[in-house]
Amino acid sequence: MPGNSFGRIFTITTFGESHGKGIGVIIDGVPPSVELSEEDIQVELDRRRPGQSRVTTPRREPDRVQILSGVFQGRTTGTPMALFIPNRSARPADYESFKDLYRPGHADFTYHRKYGIRDWRGSGRASGRETAARVAAGAVARKVLLGEGIGITAYVLEIDGICAERIDLSEIEKNMVRSPDKDAAERMIARIDQARSEGDSVGGIVEVLVRGIPPGMGDPVFDKLDALLAHALMSIGGVRGFEVGKGIESARMRGSQFNDSYYADGVRVRTRTNNAGGILGGISTGEDIVLRVAVRPPASIERPQETVSVDGVERTIEVHGRHDPCIAPRIVPVVEAMVAVTLLDCLLVHRSYQGWVHGT
Amino acid sequence: MPGNSFGRIFTITTFGESHGKGIGVIIDGVPPSVELSEEDIQVELDRRRPGQSRVTTPRREPDRVQILSGVFQGRTTGTPMALFIPNRSARPADYESFKDLYRPGHADFTYHRKYGIRDWRGSGRASGRETAARVAAGAVARKVLLGEGIGITAYVLEIDGICAERIDLSEIEKNMVRSPDKDAAERMIARIDQARSEGDSVGGIVEVLVRGIPPGMGDPVFDKLDALLAHALMSIGGVRGFEVGKGIESARMRGSQFNDSYYADGVRVRTRTNNAGGILGGISTGEDIVLRVAVRPPASIERPQETVSVDGVERTIEVHGRHDPCIAPRIVPVVEAMVAVTLLDCLLVHRSYQGWVHGT
Amino acid sequence: MPGNSFGRIFTITTFGESHGKGIGVIIDGVPPSVELSEEDIQVELDRRRPGQSRVTTPRREPDRVQILSGVFQGRTTGTPMALFIPNRSARPADYESFKDLYRPGHADFTYHRKYGIRDWRGSGRASGRETAARVAAGAVARKVLLGEGIGITAYVLEIDGICAERIDLSEIEKNMVRSPDKDAAERMIARIDQARSEGDSVGGIVEVLVRGIPPGMGDPVFDKLDALLAHALMSIGGVRGFEVGKGIESARMRGSQFNDSYYADGVRVRTRTNNAGGILGGISTGEDIVLRVAVRPPASIERPQETVSVDGVERTIEVHGRHDPCIAPRIVPVVEAMVAVTLLDCLLVHRSYQGWVHGT
Amino acid sequence: MPGNSFGRIFTITTFGESHGKGIGVIIDGVPPSVELSEEDIQVELDRRRPGQSRVTTPRREPDRVQILSGVFQGRTTGTPMALFIPNRSARPADYESFKDLYRPGHADFTYHRKYGIRDWRGSGRASGRETAARVAAGAVARKVLLGEGIGITAYVLEIDGICAERIDLSEIEKNMVRSPDKDAAERMIARIDQARSEGDSVGGIVEVLVRGIPPGMGDPVFDKLDALLAHALMSIGGVRGFEVGKGIESARMRGSQFNDSYYADGVRVRTRTNNAGGILGGISTGEDIVLRVAVRPPASIERPQETVSVDGVERTIEVHGRHDPCIAPRIVPVVEAMVAVTLLDCLLVHRSYQGWVHGT
Repeated sequence: MPGNSFGRIFTITTFGESHGKGIGVIIDGVPPSVELSEEDIQVELDRRRPGQSRVTTPRREPDRVQILSGVFQGRTTGTPMALFIPNRSARPADYESFKDLYRPGHADFTYHRKYGIRDWRGSGRASGRETAARVAAGAVARKVLLGEGIGITAYVLEIDGICAERIDLSEIEKNMVRSPDKDAAERMIARIDQARSEGDSVGGIVEVLVRGIPPGMGDPVFDKLDALLAHALMSIGGVRGFEVGKGIESARMRGSQFNDSYYADGVRVRTRTNNAGGILGGISTGEDIVLRVAVRPPASIERPQETVSVDGVERTIEVHGRHDPCIAPRIVPVVEAMVAVTLLDCLLVHRSYQGWVHGT
Repeated sequence: MPGNSFGRIFTITTFGESHGKGIGVIIDGVPPSVELSEEDIQVELDRRRPGQSRVTTPRREPDRVQILSGVFQGRTTGTPMALFIPNRSARPADYESFKDLYRPGHADFTYHRKYGIRDWRGSGRASGRETAARVAAGAVARKVLLGEGIGITAYVLEIDGICAERIDLSEIEKNMVRSPDKDAAERMIARIDQARSEGDSVGGIVEVLVRGIPPGMGDPVFDKLDALLAHALMSIGGVRGFEVGKGIESARMRGSQFNDSYYADGVRVRTRTNNAGGILGGISTGEDIVLRVAVRPPASIERPQETVSVDGVERTIEVHGRHDPCIAPRIVPVVEAMVAVTLLDCLLVHRSYQGWVHGT
Repeated sequence: MPGNSFGRIFTITTFGESHGKGIGVIIDGVPPSVELSEEDIQVELDRRRPGQSRVTTPRREPDRVQILSGVFQGRTTGTPMALFIPNRSARPADYESFKDLYRPGHADFTYHRKYGIRDWRGSGRASGRETAARVAAGAVARKVLLGEGIGITAYVLEIDGICAERIDLSEIEKNMVRSPDKDAAERMIARIDQARSEGDSVGGIVEVLVRGIPPGMGDPVFDKLDALLAHALMSIGGVRGFEVGKGIESARMRGSQFNDSYYADGVRVRTRTNNAGGILGGISTGEDIVLRVAVRPPASIERPQETVSVDGVERTIEVHGRHDPCIAPRIVPVVEAMVAVTLLDCLLVHRSYQGWVHGT
Repeated sequence: MPGNSFGRIFTITTFGESHGKGIGVIIDGVPPSVELSEEDIQVELDRRRPGQSRVTTPRREPDRVQILSGVFQGRTTGTPMALFIPNRSARPADYESFKDLYRPGHADFTYHRKYGIRDWRGSGRASGRETAARVAAGAVARKVLLGEGIGITAYVLEIDGICAERIDLSEIEKNMVRSPDKDAAERMIARIDQARSEGDSVGGIVEVLVRGIPPGMGDPVFDKLDALLAHALMSIGGVRGFEVGKGIESARMRGSQFNDSYYADGVRVRTRTNNAGGILGGISTGEDIVLRVAVRPPASIERPQETVSVDGVERTIEVHGRHDPCIAPRIVPVVEAMVAVTLLDCLLVHRSYQGWVHGT
């Protein structure tokens, strides 16, 4: 029944529904004295917000964040930051006609079975809109991490089977699908347009790259860095698979291919390849962390689907409204945010005992 | 620095190193009055223990479990169960020659950077041997879940690219690789034999199937059932990817293909397909939960590999000793254990507020 | 650096500063389908709010609560409730002159040493105003507990050495000091008036009585019911001592006096006395839970005091402004709230495993 | 149902029953590279063990600790330490005759109601013997804290109303009751002898003094340093009251008396008095931390007492066996241990964000 918090020292707790008063987050464990403004957060929210381009939902939400606490004279105080994003374009009436039907692929049925009561206005708490709070919290974490030399970049690697063939990070924010390959981006956009025109939706793959993580970060056994990151990323609605480094492909490699050889780069120990994706035994190697998530096609499609009503009668449903035909591009900032939140928490745990680590 | 505990109400905390005195676990939150004997646990440990067959390490460990607390007159008392598995066949001397070298693919380098000190005897805490404690705890969770009508079965779906073509659960424990397809099993075994004879190792894919989970279990947002299961399974050493339901393949499906239609099966709401793998919005649908993990090839191979010593000198290493050429078959009971531990914890959280859930 | 959350299943996280935008709380783990309105919460906030009577601070805050999430059509949905109480009567300028001085008895110095930065507007996060968020969360917990037959009542037992001589619960809300003895109440009020006229402040003792707790609630060892309640109540600013049952007096009793004898009251097992205050071995006996806290005199007094400035210079300070001469009466609803929050969390943990408890 | 763990980064989890195989603890979050031997732990266990003197139980337990993991070549590795103390002098038969009776003042009834099953051998998990595991864990924490210049000393301030009149720390370990006043110690011992000869038991007050805590440690709001310490100390069986600094007496002081004035001691800010007991706003001031706990008389007395059997029949019980007539002297090392465990955890959290604290 809990489940709305994440983290150990740097901890976020989100609240809010898609068509209620708004969405928000409390961030505890924010390091003090960090310069921080609403604008620092807004810039990230603008990357996630609906209505950015024709490949996203036409819902027009300005998603203006308010800092309610934890910042004094432009700096964090170390006490909890509360961030609130009012809902401006809520249209609960759009959902009135489905309120007694379980939309296939949505969480309507499962929420109803869990709680016995359900806010049916636009998926309520289960809406992708909840991720706005994650992005807001992630913006704070990113700013702190950047100050420590840690950078996080995510991008769309694949949409509906169309793959980026080259990774040019400077291209990502230049195209509507956030692909690092501008040619592939064009084909991806065309495919999304086509799916939407057919009343359908498509999925995709998002990859994330982390630079600047010191070696030795992460915990053994259950809180391995990759296990925490999997938890963080699998908790984003619509994510159905997670990989670190070579991921699933590792299962088809030989040990002699998979193992990353070490070499000495001056005083630094480096690996020649990075099949491990920067994490061995759950602890960072100091190489780039590389993760991928598989994002399913959005559940809201305009085609007729079979379903059942809350009173058990079989029915047909068509879900019209303001929906994303593909959420991979808008998940990019959410993935970055969750990675940032997870890594800052790990960094704080890491710092706690450095006074006892010698000679490395 | 912590990280050795997992769970919220049903909580496990493991300890121990590969070549120290032994491996163990404390289980807190065990439901009371459950009949439980060392034999109930032993039967699961025997499925994980080394030296079972020629496709596993020849290290001969009887892995006899001792219940140190929490059981009285054959029943659990609700107080913590401590389980201890003494190491009998420890051979630290086998590792003396590598103690100043970072074995590629192992956690030697990362543990050293994390702690500044390292138990180099057989990977110490980072050894796969740590999973014996998980299996022991999982046996307790499984017994409780079985009493609630919940069954968990894992098997090897793929080894080094060779796939099981049919799923016959009755075959799993009849072959050395725990494949549900006896013909594929033979080819998998031959492939492992070949890899070992070449001083190499191979990876694989393990799938797990959960039956009997009631609909409505799991928490929203960060503690989604699939996020917790991803955390649990990605925390097993050697696992590099995680999927739920159609998993990565979802990214290449259309919404119209992916969405599972509902139908009424008497009073029960069911789905015609199960692409979601039994989890929507992080909450169980009541259909089978289907998960897969990708297991990389073991790091210990007998071929020469390039590395660096703890004092920064480039060196060549050959890792001889008692190693598994493929860990997928032995990971099967570990996967089942981690799924059991996670689900029992979720079931207890689920039960906590059922008094307020009406009319579903 | 964290520390702003409390609870395991029913969890509260507070935020906000005394002279910032407002004070708030996220409540996770709220049981679903509970009828709940802003008015249910407001009624408790009105009992804590400043400016109620002449024995409290003259700061006039309406303390109007807003429910931002988690309630749909007048019922809780099981998802997080966010409550926000805007600050209306903030007067940061009142504090400008002390901003570089550490007020004796306040947390100015300790917050400054902890964070290196400090919101000096009216104690910022360390203000007693933070307890408004606790009272709001407590109102939700109380409503749920009342539905389960559990009632919580606190009152002022002693102020500045003047003790209530009889406990008449119906008197509590009839006098300004919330004493259960109306005659003592008059003397207490006179004493507070006198202290204030001398520019001084006084302390007191608050007792709390819980009825209807089932036997068997609470956890062994570290999360004993009394340990959790001590944690909850000692976390209220100004509380310097905690007792359960006979408390400190127990240390001066013989075992033959202290032990509560059992008798059979029909099918119920009862105790003839209740020296244990309803808790034995950290678990409830089913008798009333009886706790007491000692509340120190408020730190803000109008007399000159010696102090040191942030740059280390010795100075004299006089703290004028809008302060409580005694906070015991206003702590009463805070104590009730923290007890409610703690007990509902324990009740949810208790419910989680009742399916395995037989024959009691 | 959980409740057997304590701490956030430095975390202890205990297990075991009084007359089972033994008692133990897993300690997670141990800083690495700390020199540590079984002897370091044994020396503390010897201070708690039964049979030390005529004022304690005559049960003769050598309480020999075994380190099962987490130490390599005489140093901690940062991985979990498991400590085990086998029970050697278990005599379950002593309890056979009470097994169907609820002993007054014991947790027999409450454990039975909680779990529906009960290990009746010497109070099982509810036995004071469980504290051996705390003392073992505390010994590890103390060693680490000592290395950081933090020292913890507890002593008996009062027994059955007889108070120590002077505090001479060098006297504590020289007398059987661990009083800092050797004259009072003699009278305390005589009083215990007398109570025992009357088949009765007595209570006492234990005080603890912590030196060397840096200012700024502890968290705001719910995890105030005094709230965590209250949680830790109230979780010790038999403790019924907790005070910090002037404690209960604060309630009878004026603000002008209670507030500790600041002065400048070179670069350090100090207070002239220490009524706050070293903690303001939940955060350390840098002055000594002063806490007190009230310990009730032990429940096992040889006089006839009224009770009820598990099947609801009223009965008379006399508890013969090996019991302490006063547990205050043996609680001294347990109090020190719990304070050490709590403070090391707080120190690790404190260290985690020091990189962002400037200019204090």
